[in-house]
Amino acid sequence: MSAHAYSPVTERTVEELQKLIGASNVSADLEKRIAYSYDEVPRFYWDKEYIAEVVVFPETTEDVSALMRYANDHRIPVTPRGAGTGLSGGAVPFSGGIVLSFEKMRAIIELDKKNLTITVEPGVVTAEITKAAEREGLLYAGDPCSGDASFIGGNVAENAGGNKVVKYGTTGNSVLALEAVLPDGTVTWFGGKRRKDATGYDFAHLIVGSEGTLAVVTKIILKLLPLPGKVLDLLVPFPDVASAIDFAPRVMSEGKVIPSSMEFMDRRSIKLAERFLNTRLPFDDAGAHLIIQLEGNDPEVLADDMERIGDLCFAHGALEVFVADNRTTRDKLWKARKCLAEAIMAFYPKYSLEDLVVPTSEIPKLMAETTRLCTKYGLEEANFGHVGDGNMHVNILFPEERPDWHDIVDALLDELYDFTASIGGTLSGEHGIGLKRQKYMCRVMDASQMELIHRVKLAFDPNNILNPGKMISCPDRE
Amino acid sequence: MSAHAYSPVTERTVEELQKLIGASNVSADLEKRIAYSYDEVPRFYWDKEYIAEVVVFPETTEDVSALMRYANDHRIPVTPRGAGTGLSGGAVPFSGGIVLSFEKMRAIIELDKKNLTITVEPGVVTAEITKAAEREGLLYAGDPCSGDASFIGGNVAENAGGNKVVKYGTTGNSVLALEAVLPDGTVTWFGGKRRKDATGYDFAHLIVGSEGTLAVVTKIILKLLPLPGKVLDLLVPFPDVASAIDFAPRVMSEGKVIPSSMEFMDRRSIKLAERFLNTRLPFDDAGAHLIIQLEGNDPEVLADDMERIGDLCFAHGALEVFVADNRTTRDKLWKARKCLAEAIMAFYPKYSLEDLVVPTSEIPKLMAETTRLCTKYGLEEANFGHVGDGNMHVNILFPEERPDWHDIVDALLDELYDFTASIGGTLSGEHGIGLKRQKYMCRVMDASQMELIHRVKLAFDPNNILNPGKMISCPDRE
Repeated sequence: MSAHAYSPVTERTVEELQKLIGASNVSADLEKRIAYSYDEVPRFYWDKEYIAEVVVFPETTEDVSALMRYANDHRIPVTPRGAGTGLSGGAVPFSGGIVLSFEKMRAIIELDKKNLTITVEPGVVTAEITKAAEREGLLYAGDPCSGDASFIGGNVAENAGGNKVVKYGTTGNSVLALEAVLPDGTVTWFGGKRRKDATGYDFAHLIVGSEGTLAVVTKIILKLLPLPGKVLDLLVPFPDVASAIDFAPRVMSEGKVIPSSMEFMDRRSIKLAERFLNTRLPFDDAGAHLIIQLEGNDPEVLADDMERIGDLCFAHGALEVFVADNRTTRDKLWKARKCLAEAIMAFYPKYSLEDLVVPTSEIPKLMAETTRLCTKYGLEEANFGHVGDGNMHVNILFPEERPDWHDIVDALLDELYDFTASIGGTLSGEHGIGLKRQKYMCRVMDASQMELIHRVKLAFDPNNILNPGKMISCPDRE
Repeated sequence: MSAHAYSPVTERTVEELQKLIGASNVSADLEKRIAYSYDEVPRFYWDKEYIAEVVVFPETTEDVSALMRYANDHRIPVTPRGAGTGLSGGAVPFSGGIVLSFEKMRAIIELDKKNLTITVEPGVVTAEITKAAEREGLLYAGDPCSGDASFIGGNVAENAGGNKVVKYGTTGNSVLALEAVLPDGTVTWFGGKRRKDATGYDFAHLIVGSEGTLAVVTKIILKLLPLPGKVLDLLVPFPDVASAIDFAPRVMSEGKVIPSSMEFMDRRSIKLAERFLNTRLPFDDAGAHLIIQLEGNDPEVLADDMERIGDLCFAHGALEVFVADNRTTRDKLWKARKCLAEAIMAFYPKYSLEDLVVPTSEIPKLMAETTRLCTKYGLEEANFGHVGDGNMHVNILFPEERPDWHDIVDALLDELYDFTASIGGTLSGEHGIGLKRQKYMCRVMDASQMELIHRVKLAFDPNNILNPGKMISCPDRE
């Protein structure tokens, strides 16, 4: 099938959709269509406008099923959409058609204390899940920086990472089961409230991270854990990027602790956070900061861990070790870390936020190459990210408007992605490919893998109606 | 394509295979062909003999690639085989053809202390990986009961679980990357030395647990962790099965500890272990035992945890709490736990070893139904397993030879699998479907899921040459 085979959305389509799921759940209003056609990738990034032809707001799985059956029968593309906090253009309706918003499916269906699970609809805000679990003395380990706004459905679609991956893994690690609507409208469950499963292919976790291209997720069962009794954060300034990066893996290898977070911020990132939040952070002239989060049930052990890791920091060049062990100080610290993407968007006219992931040992090389390239192209850089996972948000910044900015970004990313691949890294650790990084897939995937992606996509979605044009372009196969 | 489309292995085939990978790496000797045509599912389980037509022993990825290309071109089925410790008939050559043994690909290629990874060939014995990691002060978290014999390639193919899943997850959780040979001979890498990856579909973890039906794995990169400084095991006898099962989840929910193991053995299992090992275990007349493994770096914390969990045990009916905190006592305990499958094979003329997994809250119901069914059919039961994961090895035992034993097992499993599905469970937690449980797949999978398995299988393996007849039968599609 070909992209040309899609049908346009007509007035009749809108009427039929309204009959299927209710008039108030379907909008062809232009303003709404535009509002629901972007995520956090700025509009200026795209060479043209990709605008939904109609936006739908299903309330139930049955609504989603009816919508998908209709769209499949009529060959209308469907782009599922969470809260629009994505950073890859995954929710941009590349081929027009229907944008399917989950904002009306936001129920926490069940918190099962016996099985330590929580069952939610995709439109639940991530932080609401964290809070619901905490109220029962439980931990939901997913913690993306956008968690106060993002929907869990989007986290699942992108296999979101965040600040606790070093200890607990990505969103997928917390997913036990998915209720999914297949492109033809069939509703089925993958997985269950089971801690393990060797029965058939693991489609639940294939759908996690598939960017809404294989199936539409309508319910999610997540694993919960006992809530650690106490958490503390260390903020550790280092004289330069190299010494901070060099130190990070020692927390595990020499400190013998798996921290629950291990975050890195360079000097420019610290300054950006200060400016954005109108606040001051300690040692803000240091070359780089690490945030090391420790947790446990025994305050004395935690104090011991803290002292040991603190000593280790000083032994390897740390300028100071600040301990944030109360809620207020910890919140201030994490607010700084979590605002960074927004701060860049606020202060730079043009930028590209990247999400490279490399073997942790290769981070120093990645940092050096980033600096070399930004110098070469006359740009600024701000780097922060999940140094414990090898996942660095390298950010290419234009201090001033430049008409040729996109050509420059493209040329720089060409070099940067090739370098990243050469050191065993890849395009995205947690933001996904979406529309933004699709053209770079061939830098890290060979022809056989591209072909497999294509075939598996069509195995799930023979008419290529589900979020077409993402991850890889799906060439005409007729 | 149809099963009838397969070509037979002729003398010419054998000669050509010998030319491709060396004369000493190809055997058409009948004795060898039989020896490599079974796993630990006993021969009496099958209604007919499924014997390899030729057995090959590749030494390199290039050998595997050449073999697969040849087999694909000539439509000869290929059944990959590890150490033959599987419990689902996954390595049985259902359609004859080539059995591909990995016993000559047994190199530990690299232990990377900087990235905490180990790269191995599929023929490495699991326990060798554990030892190699330990020598560097690191933990490989995979711990199947058959680990002293099983190959890591088989662990990957079945997504093996074992004794540490409750804390560390299954084999798949330790897998970072796979080098794989696709059915047409193409060699490619899925994943890398990266702790996270949101770049394309997660094929590495789709191949994990796919029972050798999608691709042939030729190298595996596994994640390692810091080795806990101290480990201790509690052996806790309870008066009956119900009280042991009821207690297990309290370790996490009330004890606030995630144990590294949480194993269950009923009275018959204990007695079987004693008889098989010619030894005595304490309180062997108790109705059931739990083994609770705790680990940590701080001996004092561990002592506190032990005391707290011990008190909790006594508060909920434990008859005693034995602490195994030295290597000898711990080894004795685990030898008992790990010998159980072998003990059943040694002492019962007929049996069926099952691998049910249910939500942990449903284990009491599963145990009750198992007892009811074994009583109904006049059989014995021995139940043990990974109670922390809801994964129970329910074992159906014939104390005496019965000619109609297979009919009885089939009738009992019919009821047991339906019941398991009705309480949110499924066929297999860690042993896989293979040839043994294929016919029960429709009890837990709807038509849409069976169809997706079929389509994804053909997306990877269009000629259906890779381990055909496993997981689901792959019906004629011509």
